[in-house]
Amino acid sequence: MQPLRIGVIGAGAMGSAHVRTITNDVPAARVTAVFDPDPERAGRAADPVRARAFADAGELIGHPDVDAVVIASPDVTHAGLARACIAAGRPVLCEKPLAVTASDAYSVVEAELSAGKRLLQVGFMRRYDPGFVDLRRTVTDGRIGDVRLVHAVHRNATNATSTDDAGLVTGSMVHELDLIPWLVGSQLTAIRVESPVREGFRDPQLATLWTGNGVMASVEVFVNAGYGYDVRCECVGTLGTVALATASPVSSRIAGVEGRAVRSDFVAHFAEAYRIELGRWAGSVLATDVTGPSAWDGYVAQVAAEAGVASLRSGAIEAVEPGLRPPLYGHGPDGGPGHGRSSTA
Amino acid sequence: MQPLRIGVIGAGAMGSAHVRTITNDVPAARVTAVFDPDPERAGRAADPVRARAFADAGELIGHPDVDAVVIASPDVTHAGLARACIAAGRPVLCEKPLAVTASDAYSVVEAELSAGKRLLQVGFMRRYDPGFVDLRRTVTDGRIGDVRLVHAVHRNATNATSTDDAGLVTGSMVHELDLIPWLVGSQLTAIRVESPVREGFRDPQLATLWTGNGVMASVEVFVNAGYGYDVRCECVGTLGTVALATASPVSSRIAGVEGRAVRSDFVAHFAEAYRIELGRWAGSVLATDVTGPSAWDGYVAQVAAEAGVASLRSGAIEAVEPGLRPPLYGHGPDGGPGHGRSSTA
Amino acid sequence: MQPLRIGVIGAGAMGSAHVRTITNDVPAARVTAVFDPDPERAGRAADPVRARAFADAGELIGHPDVDAVVIASPDVTHAGLARACIAAGRPVLCEKPLAVTASDAYSVVEAELSAGKRLLQVGFMRRYDPGFVDLRRTVTDGRIGDVRLVHAVHRNATNATSTDDAGLVTGSMVHELDLIPWLVGSQLTAIRVESPVREGFRDPQLATLWTGNGVMASVEVFVNAGYGYDVRCECVGTLGTVALATASPVSSRIAGVEGRAVRSDFVAHFAEAYRIELGRWAGSVLATDVTGPSAWDGYVAQVAAEAGVASLRSGAIEAVEPGLRPPLYGHGPDGGPGHGRSSTA
Amino acid sequence: MQPLRIGVIGAGAMGSAHVRTITNDVPAARVTAVFDPDPERAGRAADPVRARAFADAGELIGHPDVDAVVIASPDVTHAGLARACIAAGRPVLCEKPLAVTASDAYSVVEAELSAGKRLLQVGFMRRYDPGFVDLRRTVTDGRIGDVRLVHAVHRNATNATSTDDAGLVTGSMVHELDLIPWLVGSQLTAIRVESPVREGFRDPQLATLWTGNGVMASVEVFVNAGYGYDVRCECVGTLGTVALATASPVSSRIAGVEGRAVRSDFVAHFAEAYRIELGRWAGSVLATDVTGPSAWDGYVAQVAAEAGVASLRSGAIEAVEPGLRPPLYGHGPDGGPGHGRSSTA
Repeated sequence: MQPLRIGVIGAGAMGSAHVRTITNDVPAARVTAVFDPDPERAGRAADPVRARAFADAGELIGHPDVDAVVIASPDVTHAGLARACIAAGRPVLCEKPLAVTASDAYSVVEAELSAGKRLLQVGFMRRYDPGFVDLRRTVTDGRIGDVRLVHAVHRNATNATSTDDAGLVTGSMVHELDLIPWLVGSQLTAIRVESPVREGFRDPQLATLWTGNGVMASVEVFVNAGYGYDVRCECVGTLGTVALATASPVSSRIAGVEGRAVRSDFVAHFAEAYRIELGRWAGSVLATDVTGPSAWDGYVAQVAAEAGVASLRSGAIEAVEPGLRPPLYGHGPDGGPGHGRSSTA
Repeated sequence: MQPLRIGVIGAGAMGSAHVRTITNDVPAARVTAVFDPDPERAGRAADPVRARAFADAGELIGHPDVDAVVIASPDVTHAGLARACIAAGRPVLCEKPLAVTASDAYSVVEAELSAGKRLLQVGFMRRYDPGFVDLRRTVTDGRIGDVRLVHAVHRNATNATSTDDAGLVTGSMVHELDLIPWLVGSQLTAIRVESPVREGFRDPQLATLWTGNGVMASVEVFVNAGYGYDVRCECVGTLGTVALATASPVSSRIAGVEGRAVRSDFVAHFAEAYRIELGRWAGSVLATDVTGPSAWDGYVAQVAAEAGVASLRSGAIEAVEPGLRPPLYGHGPDGGPGHGRSSTA
Repeated sequence: MQPLRIGVIGAGAMGSAHVRTITNDVPAARVTAVFDPDPERAGRAADPVRARAFADAGELIGHPDVDAVVIASPDVTHAGLARACIAAGRPVLCEKPLAVTASDAYSVVEAELSAGKRLLQVGFMRRYDPGFVDLRRTVTDGRIGDVRLVHAVHRNATNATSTDDAGLVTGSMVHELDLIPWLVGSQLTAIRVESPVREGFRDPQLATLWTGNGVMASVEVFVNAGYGYDVRCECVGTLGTVALATASPVSSRIAGVEGRAVRSDFVAHFAEAYRIELGRWAGSVLATDVTGPSAWDGYVAQVAAEAGVASLRSGAIEAVEPGLRPPLYGHGPDGGPGHGRSSTA
Repeated sequence: MQPLRIGVIGAGAMGSAHVRTITNDVPAARVTAVFDPDPERAGRAADPVRARAFADAGELIGHPDVDAVVIASPDVTHAGLARACIAAGRPVLCEKPLAVTASDAYSVVEAELSAGKRLLQVGFMRRYDPGFVDLRRTVTDGRIGDVRLVHAVHRNATNATSTDDAGLVTGSMVHELDLIPWLVGSQLTAIRVESPVREGFRDPQLATLWTGNGVMASVEVFVNAGYGYDVRCECVGTLGTVALATASPVSSRIAGVEGRAVRSDFVAHFAEAYRIELGRWAGSVLATDVTGPSAWDGYVAQVAAEAGVASLRSGAIEAVEPGLRPPLYGHGPDGGPGHGRSSTA
């Protein structure tokens, strides 16, 4: 079988990393095209892998040498590019967030509904992380009984991306907003976001989530945590708990301290998750059967994030109400209407 | 110096444990008297240590062979016995909670104010636990910067004591309500208590606390956690975090699992804390200088617990308003009015 | 660039795993040919990846659709097949051990010397394991000072492969015999192998190794350790120590135990090491620059293993004397004669 | 019951620590007498606890206000003082080592045999450490099957005490020489001590021990390990393993490292072991039933240490042959002749 020919849109840190991961670790795919508005940056990513640098994203999407597209451009461009891919019938992996507003995200859903089939996967790579996969399996197997609580932590050493504190919800916490329903098998119904910092850039944030099956979750997002990049999660059930473990492969004993290195950024932390995500996605596209996190999942996370931002402003609990799940997207985590194949890795 | 002669009121699990700990591990004290309404139980605790079993608590408090009193009887009797000790001029270590209502706790404060000196210490033994002491030292030393968040967990395998869910706040969470202000150096100002369980016995509970110096804390109390007794706490600052570590002295690798034992109850878990607490208390009484957790601390924790119960019922954030700290009790954690010696171990 | 077309010899557990790993995780290569004496087994490995099943290993080695060969057949066949590949000018990755005797291993070295260039890499996959790589980097960086001791442990749940106890040295310990010189940067000079079990199948074995730069190592090999597959290693230096950490991605708290799963076999344990090994090897073959563990490394490990078996029988310390390193193989770990490129990943 | 009145011989670091531990943590005893050849040092230890400072050790031993003696003076004085105590009929806790030669240690055994009863306990405090007690219980319960190997590590940050490298065996490793037989229930039969350092002060040392029930043990002693004080031990059985766990009560995440403090010295590390040892000893003396590690245990450890020093010089395995255990000392760990009460805590 010929490898999938992929066009990558955006040659920044994330896009370049995807080019390298596909080239080095995904046999089923190769990068044939790269677009970036900065031609030099496009070339730096394209040349080492003998891909063609495009000067126009639309041209890349429509080019016959491109079987599928990865969108890793600035967030504000995601929804438009995603719709263009769908219009062109191109399978597409779109980095999270799917859009910067819920209504814009819904426009992508509508595009797929018009196309009559799933073409898009959202880049919620944590669903492929071995730790989270193991966590979910332990929960699903019933080994900890019925889940009552989830405690999640999401920290960055320093704030690299968010210019205002709403970005902590829409850019960082959005991972937990997607992941916790996936872990516990039920949609979010409400969210509250608070912070000990009352004015200015409100970081850290402490969110409380409620799901349809009666789970409460506490979520800390702290983008100036100082010491490093850190992601933790514990599910608490009626028989026991299960939690992500520390991941460093070695520990040292030097100068009075037994220590393990904490990773400095999410690219290193989730390297294996990205590799598995891209490999599975390429495989599913070749099988013409896109099954990963869907446009609907991206839309629902955006709805939850907007409710979270509203809560950060209002101080109140805000409902998360995405509306009815279209049949195209199969069962939701609660197994609601719109039957079909589950949208889970 | 002659050892302190102690009368223990209550010969149940807690009282008997105190008799053994004083006898085996506290050179500065010995148990000379035990009261329990059940004479057989009183004898079982008193006889092995050659103490006298009393048939009346008041008689024990007033007896010339008793220099100081430990109250370990049912919660509902604490405040009355504490007032009786104060009236008799007897130094007293009263198990938590100081009283079952805040107003009753305040009556103990008033008794001390009338006596014009501190005679009572509340049994918040966690302030003596090496782990919590180390946690507080790390925070106070500034090694993690300014604290922004605290995450606390408090679990029992099965519910042994609480007959209604308010008891999770007043009987279990009260430890965290005392401890978190002590850790971060500031009083509680507000509390909210919620549960994923909406009806009936609402367990687990997830509380949010606010302190005067801008810290938010999440506190999980779960008295039917199934797997064992567990207490965890992480302080999150602007430079890093510090957390209680797993305490088991050995780890085994058997049948596909690398495991450490989880303790089954708080008496085993906090054995060293109780030993240090009793030793320090005996020393402070002999030095006529009671300095541990005060009646005011017990009252304030009760005020917070009542606000917590109110929040569990109302669903709203409830203010924690203990009123002005009397000068007898020195500086509060925020260094407010009423100067004097700090009431901290 | 066209992917490397690989022929895999041997379709047992190891060979089949290599077919899958190359297919799923190594973009630079694809499996085009599989040989196994059992045609059904050859077909089961070849068919899903559209490779051709060969009835003769020599035919596979010489076939124009095969650019390079992976040898994963029974140990006794390794050296002969390796020589055949070298004679045919085929780059080859040969599973460890390179041969079942040191003299047979040396015949492979001689074949390469005759060919005048390196064509063979030995499958010491641990050199690619992220934990061991991190361990070696910490040592090489000087962070633990000068290494004095290494403690290594290598356990299997049950003995799957060794029919007599010499096999613990030649089949299992051979990994440590290769790895420890690589970690500490110096060749083995002597070995002693003992066992607490004096008669019959002598398992576990406790070996002591000496290197040219004054390091002593203790190595436990235990193939009936019962609880699972486990590999541990600690390097002890004059400033500190560094050790492999526990690798399980999650930990659970259930029924009185805080536990992490121990892996059951080496394929799962070293999955990432195999993936990286195969990827790097394919890349180096495409660059016509084979640089991984060499035939010389395989021969030296075999010399050490034979000395180890001799020691197990004699009870004495046995010298490890591989003779002079030919220039083709570059610097040894001690930087001895025969300069050239280092044979290290 | 009146507390045991204890005279402490030696007011250096160890003796002073014992004075403080008895005073603060052992209700059943109090220090009434202190001897040190330096009167100022004696006073510094004696005065705060209102004990009398003696100018002569013999006078202290014989004084009517002294019920029992603790020997914490320089090693070379131990045996003579121990014999003096026995001659005077005084129960005595003698710090390890019991003597600086095996024959001198045996003279203490002979003194007890003449006295016809046990009066002496050797200060092998590790037998009271909760971690080692838990380790031994796990082994004894059969949970790891039959023990085959033990791996022990014993490190100091810097060499504080040993002036020549034989002292690593007689002063440090002597703890493991006592402990490992106690853990696995069988006497040492042979020992070999080696070092990667071939000349001068040979540190670290790597010893191999053999016991009568077929266990082999590797023991590392390293008194210049740089990073801190560290004691580790793993018992490897046919069903699993059990090991001491890291003991720090908190862990921090600061500046890219998740770390736990390593203790700096053995007094801090074994504080709880010393407390329990002294408490149990006082209790056993009051019950006129000395049962802890015996003079025989001290003698046997010394025999093993001398064999270890001989091995360090000879390079050979040296037999450990203490001779027949006198009936006074009850069963040995193997349950040999000389029945009576087991000499184990």
